[in-house]
Amino acid sequence: MQVIEGGVTAAKGFEAAATAAKIKYQDRTDMALIYSVKPCKTAGTFTTNIVQAAPVKWDKEIVRSGQKSQAVIVNSGIANACTGEEGISYCRETAREAASALGIDEKGVLVGSTGVIGMQLPIDRIKAGVQALAKEKKADAESGSEAAEAIMTTDTVKKEAAVTFEIGGKTVTIGGMSKGSGMIHPNMCTMLAFITTDAKISKKALQAALSSDVEDTYNMISVDGDTSTNDTVLLLANGMADNKKIRIGTPEFEKFKEALHYVNETLAKKMAGDGEGATALFEAKIIGAGTKNQAKILAKSIVCSNLTKAAIAGHDANWGRILCAMGYSGAEFDPEKVDLYFESAAGKLKIIENGTAVDYSEEKATEILSQPEVTAIADIKEGGETASAWGCDLTHEYISINADYRS
Amino acid sequence: MQVIEGGVTAAKGFEAAATAAKIKYQDRTDMALIYSVKPCKTAGTFTTNIVQAAPVKWDKEIVRSGQKSQAVIVNSGIANACTGEEGISYCRETAREAASALGIDEKGVLVGSTGVIGMQLPIDRIKAGVQALAKEKKADAESGSEAAEAIMTTDTVKKEAAVTFEIGGKTVTIGGMSKGSGMIHPNMCTMLAFITTDAKISKKALQAALSSDVEDTYNMISVDGDTSTNDTVLLLANGMADNKKIRIGTPEFEKFKEALHYVNETLAKKMAGDGEGATALFEAKIIGAGTKNQAKILAKSIVCSNLTKAAIAGHDANWGRILCAMGYSGAEFDPEKVDLYFESAAGKLKIIENGTAVDYSEEKATEILSQPEVTAIADIKEGGETASAWGCDLTHEYISINADYRS
Repeated sequence: MQVIEGGVTAAKGFEAAATAAKIKYQDRTDMALIYSVKPCKTAGTFTTNIVQAAPVKWDKEIVRSGQKSQAVIVNSGIANACTGEEGISYCRETAREAASALGIDEKGVLVGSTGVIGMQLPIDRIKAGVQALAKEKKADAESGSEAAEAIMTTDTVKKEAAVTFEIGGKTVTIGGMSKGSGMIHPNMCTMLAFITTDAKISKKALQAALSSDVEDTYNMISVDGDTSTNDTVLLLANGMADNKKIRIGTPEFEKFKEALHYVNETLAKKMAGDGEGATALFEAKIIGAGTKNQAKILAKSIVCSNLTKAAIAGHDANWGRILCAMGYSGAEFDPEKVDLYFESAAGKLKIIENGTAVDYSEEKATEILSQPEVTAIADIKEGGETASAWGCDLTHEYISINADYRS
Repeated sequence: MQVIEGGVTAAKGFEAAATAAKIKYQDRTDMALIYSVKPCKTAGTFTTNIVQAAPVKWDKEIVRSGQKSQAVIVNSGIANACTGEEGISYCRETAREAASALGIDEKGVLVGSTGVIGMQLPIDRIKAGVQALAKEKKADAESGSEAAEAIMTTDTVKKEAAVTFEIGGKTVTIGGMSKGSGMIHPNMCTMLAFITTDAKISKKALQAALSSDVEDTYNMISVDGDTSTNDTVLLLANGMADNKKIRIGTPEFEKFKEALHYVNETLAKKMAGDGEGATALFEAKIIGAGTKNQAKILAKSIVCSNLTKAAIAGHDANWGRILCAMGYSGAEFDPEKVDLYFESAAGKLKIIENGTAVDYSEEKATEILSQPEVTAIADIKEGGETASAWGCDLTHEYISINADYRS
């Protein structure tokens, strides 16, 4: 597997475009198109929130029906959530406009929205945007990047990843883009991720690979504990790599999963590190766990703790908050066996051993915690399982962004 | 039932004192004593966090053994959590010192600690503090208030409540004090609450009344979603009101529960309103629920949402975040039936009807949300059950307090 530059246009046959439709933002692009020259097998995972945005309902129906898709229209600024029948009708109108402009089937058009909940989309501006996107789509890396920029809301950087690997002499590519960065607590999430691949793969294998990997990647990040109404991950495969068809249970499936995992984990970590107001990517890693599930519950509880996140913002080795968050996670463990370390580019330091503090240097701890990527490692000494979760620090800027987001 | 001024010294036979022991704070009182002239039947509820502070372990043993207690020694500044065997030995030494100074049984001394996790108590200063407290204890309201002040950490105001009611011509009093104000997400919590009563009541009735009421009061507040290692509520009854003994299933028990509920709910709301950095008490009230449990889960999910809390800080009627928090709560409901209102001293305003926005005045909404006590009311139109949860807004000050709490 090889990591390459690029995003949704990295795989063969995929094109993208971005346009400024003035949906809510007035001075930037706010609509994106992903288009495949051939219809794609499509897998998806969606928010578990009972309140589901109109585009979630729309895409779920397409993915579950087994229909092939050929285009995704995404807008930022307005989430099209809590918008009733009117909201659903706008998904349909968007899909129709795209189908006609691109010359494809209306049922092959997926839609995605992110932004403020409860406002209706300005459908005329959406339709004009669709027309502009259809004209401007291109297969180059720049067009993919422009699409990744157009779907940002409070994100500060665009998020892309891509890899290639070989199957029987054929090069297969997986590329993707995603956006955060508030209301992020994916339980397959306002996160959106769009992954494209030219792999030839069965629909069943495509959905199986995505569903299992989402558990270890997007579902292991949290910015603020709020599971959005719009979370969507879509994976489109157009088969143009012309590889031997990938099926579940084969070595090729394992290769595909490994490559997909890299793209998903990379995008997930980029979302966590670019959480609203964040100055650091914060990873919690549990080692020595008895079961994978126990390790995941403990790791996620740590990155979700407001107090721990505020301590990270302050570069303060307030390890008691970490042990506390493990304690209320719901997972069983013996607090009196826990060793805890902080690690970053500035080094690694043992902070507690068997549940109580060792004589560590606060100065060194602060140095380690002042890096842009910081890891807390807890060894619970029960077995050989490990898990990581990713979050970010909780800062003044998060409050500034969210105390007045709508205006 | 009559609400009266006062706190832990309101009930007959209870005395209190405060002293400055310089445990961590250098310029204020930081130890408190509650003392009863007669041994008390004692009920308690404690944190469900797996990581439990030494004083939690100490008190649990006393409460569960059924022993009578006669004194509570509380310190602020250091939580005596994650302190291993050394931490437990300091509970024992504190109890011994108090027993000898007060001339009571060592097993009748409860202890409470709140503050930084992981630091060891300076036991010599604790012992000197105990000696000072034993000398200064008094039955007056001022001594109760001084005790309530001494147990504060990041709290900005002391928290007391007291009521009286009659049983067969005898006046029974219940009074209490509590402290917040970060790491507050009680599941039976760094919250501490101490309630005293002169009621004559069976031990079984005392614990039953406390255990059930905690579910509707302390366990329905949240400041930051972090369930502490130290949460403790203790209820001491010395029987000096000389009423007919209260037993479970009697009308007198119902009267006692009503009075206890007032004290607990008042202290719980004071903790929520005085959450770290908070400028407003935020209540979420679910009405029209099918079951009480459903109503409680939905209400608590709203007050725990960082995004909702940040919107309250900004006086922004961002109702989508409230519906979103209800949606990921885990409770079932139909989002398309929900009506939502904001209410405060400035009025009441319907914001959404059947899941989508009505044409409300943003100006009026902002006026309502600018009050120091704000309520969001969601009618889910399924039945007649209701529940309230209490939290606070999430502000810059919360970050400032917690990014550097230890220094």
